[in-house]
Amino acid sequence: MEEYDAKLIIASSEKDSDIYYASGFFAPDPFIFLELPDKRKILVMSDLEIERAKTESKADEILSSTYYIQKAKKRGIDYPSLLDELHEVLLELHLKHLLVPENFPIGYGDFLRKKGYKIKSKKEPFFEERLIKTEKEIELISKVLKNTEEVFGLVVEEIKKTKIKDNILYRGKEPLQSEDIKRLINEELMKKQCVAQHTIVACGDDACNPHNMGSGVLRSDQAIVIDIFPRSIETGYFADFTRTIVKGKASKKLKKLYDTVFKAQERALKLIKDGAFTDKINKAVQEVFQKAGFGTGEINGKVQGFIHGTGHGVGLDIHELPRIGSTRDRLKEGNVVTVEPGLYYYGIGGVRIEDLVVVRKDGCQNLSSFPKELII
Amino acid sequence: MEEYDAKLIIASSEKDSDIYYASGFFAPDPFIFLELPDKRKILVMSDLEIERAKTESKADEILSSTYYIQKAKKRGIDYPSLLDELHEVLLELHLKHLLVPENFPIGYGDFLRKKGYKIKSKKEPFFEERLIKTEKEIELISKVLKNTEEVFGLVVEEIKKTKIKDNILYRGKEPLQSEDIKRLINEELMKKQCVAQHTIVACGDDACNPHNMGSGVLRSDQAIVIDIFPRSIETGYFADFTRTIVKGKASKKLKKLYDTVFKAQERALKLIKDGAFTDKINKAVQEVFQKAGFGTGEINGKVQGFIHGTGHGVGLDIHELPRIGSTRDRLKEGNVVTVEPGLYYYGIGGVRIEDLVVVRKDGCQNLSSFPKELII
Repeated sequence: MEEYDAKLIIASSEKDSDIYYASGFFAPDPFIFLELPDKRKILVMSDLEIERAKTESKADEILSSTYYIQKAKKRGIDYPSLLDELHEVLLELHLKHLLVPENFPIGYGDFLRKKGYKIKSKKEPFFEERLIKTEKEIELISKVLKNTEEVFGLVVEEIKKTKIKDNILYRGKEPLQSEDIKRLINEELMKKQCVAQHTIVACGDDACNPHNMGSGVLRSDQAIVIDIFPRSIETGYFADFTRTIVKGKASKKLKKLYDTVFKAQERALKLIKDGAFTDKINKAVQEVFQKAGFGTGEINGKVQGFIHGTGHGVGLDIHELPRIGSTRDRLKEGNVVTVEPGLYYYGIGGVRIEDLVVVRKDGCQNLSSFPKELII
Repeated sequence: MEEYDAKLIIASSEKDSDIYYASGFFAPDPFIFLELPDKRKILVMSDLEIERAKTESKADEILSSTYYIQKAKKRGIDYPSLLDELHEVLLELHLKHLLVPENFPIGYGDFLRKKGYKIKSKKEPFFEERLIKTEKEIELISKVLKNTEEVFGLVVEEIKKTKIKDNILYRGKEPLQSEDIKRLINEELMKKQCVAQHTIVACGDDACNPHNMGSGVLRSDQAIVIDIFPRSIETGYFADFTRTIVKGKASKKLKKLYDTVFKAQERALKLIKDGAFTDKINKAVQEVFQKAGFGTGEINGKVQGFIHGTGHGVGLDIHELPRIGSTRDRLKEGNVVTVEPGLYYYGIGGVRIEDLVVVRKDGCQNLSSFPKELII
């Protein structure tokens, strides 16, 4: 027997991926989603969304907000809120014990508890099955990744075409800027119905903050980290992709950095399979770095080295479970995760190489196929 | 004396506008934000984000996650979570009573309450001042709107250029599709560093679901509703803009629909000023519709008429407070709100006209300037 009468989510499906996953319906404003223990899905929709929800959502039943607002008014509430409306729905359906996601709004929870409802929250993932991608979902993610790699191909062409003068890359008479490449990436991806933002094109020391998006002129002989993570407008799925390139020559130190990151990624890729412990994979990456003499910690007041985890799940969120980092988790067949070790030292530069893979029974299936070459 | 020791938010600033507003810092993963009663802002950042937070955020103090994770480990926790880390921070800073937003995750709240913290949630808006836009913010919103109107100008040119054959709009030999125009809008806005998605280009009955994005060929003599609501990648601010146009001839009924919506908008614009009650403005719009004989309710099993509110706040969220609808709220100087009455009847079509305005002391300042002409 279930310990709850229904699962409950209240959120905007443009902001919250659980309610989008469960309802299959994009809407900008928060709405009420209920799932009964027999898996029957119920939505409560405003007049504005109800007709669209009927055709676009995968709910089994769609109730009208207006009806419950009227009920609340009859109970003497002049301006019924979403919660007053919810209260009417729950009364009518005789639902008292509700299971909500960890990120369910505490203000809503407190309101419901005061009314006598029993509210229990469930840690991420709210829907365990969201982490186990179906072949259809893998196809959707692959499609976004394919678009990304095509656009990255254009970027490489663009950078190859530049001429070097005083260590600066020139496109014709103009120096090529990080912003030019970001614009190219974001515009080309939009042509493919994918939204890329916060795209990273970071050269030299800029790349040593892994989330610094980069700015200004691109230079020869320095590592340029390019990290692209677009979302399909239509399906909501993300891809995540990073390569590090150099136009011109790389210093010995930078080459060693690159080779070490490449080796660490190979190591991690080999360890990925159903049942693997995520912290062990992360540890293996750290070991490759340590053996090569690349430590992590504060140098000259700045944290440097391997300053992020090895990877994370990707799906309807760009960062989702499982995480491959210092916290223990266990990979499962069907997880889609990034494998993206990186090393960052001011003065040498930043290197990150990122593939997107599916966890399979005895290994991993790499969805990324773009070559990994430092010098272009 | 304040009733709390600190305001607390834990969220991703790419998803939650309150923490972005308060920290001035875009980051994909949830982080801890504290604001002391003396307004001092504190962030707790991971190694991955800490260097960037130091330069990009508007925090007064930035603490290192790693330090508090170590502390939690010393307390015997093998894999400290964000909450274990938070607990260490709160202990060190002697913070016991916390004010959190209504949407603070209930799972976090329950954890903290179990540890003995007093957690009180505050209804939207968490930061009252977020709704009162500064002149700088108004400038940022205006800029996004200006970009939008420029792109809409291109759309009008594109549709003007089409030839009509069998009631279908042709661009050269190809019928012009809703998708073509949406692509044009989204791509042109991306060139201006704005992300437009879920853009609406809905013709004929498609437009009668106000959030139906439209699809397929565009037809002459039918109303095409075009609703664009892009967000600036750089600043995070939105704009919101709608016009309804017809290529060819409009039926008498459609013309009357358009004129009535236009009149209702004029009426609403006149009522907007500091102190005005939002439900009264909405009521005034309803009255214009009723007087013209346009009722709201179910017709042939579909909800038709004026099936959404008159407007909503716009800022770092596309839909924020105040709402101009059936619920009572009071406009304040500096609010930025849409004014977007609409009427929707299957067989006649949908009409919506939307401006974006600033509430001023004795009226409103219209940020939108694109002409309102039905026939193009």
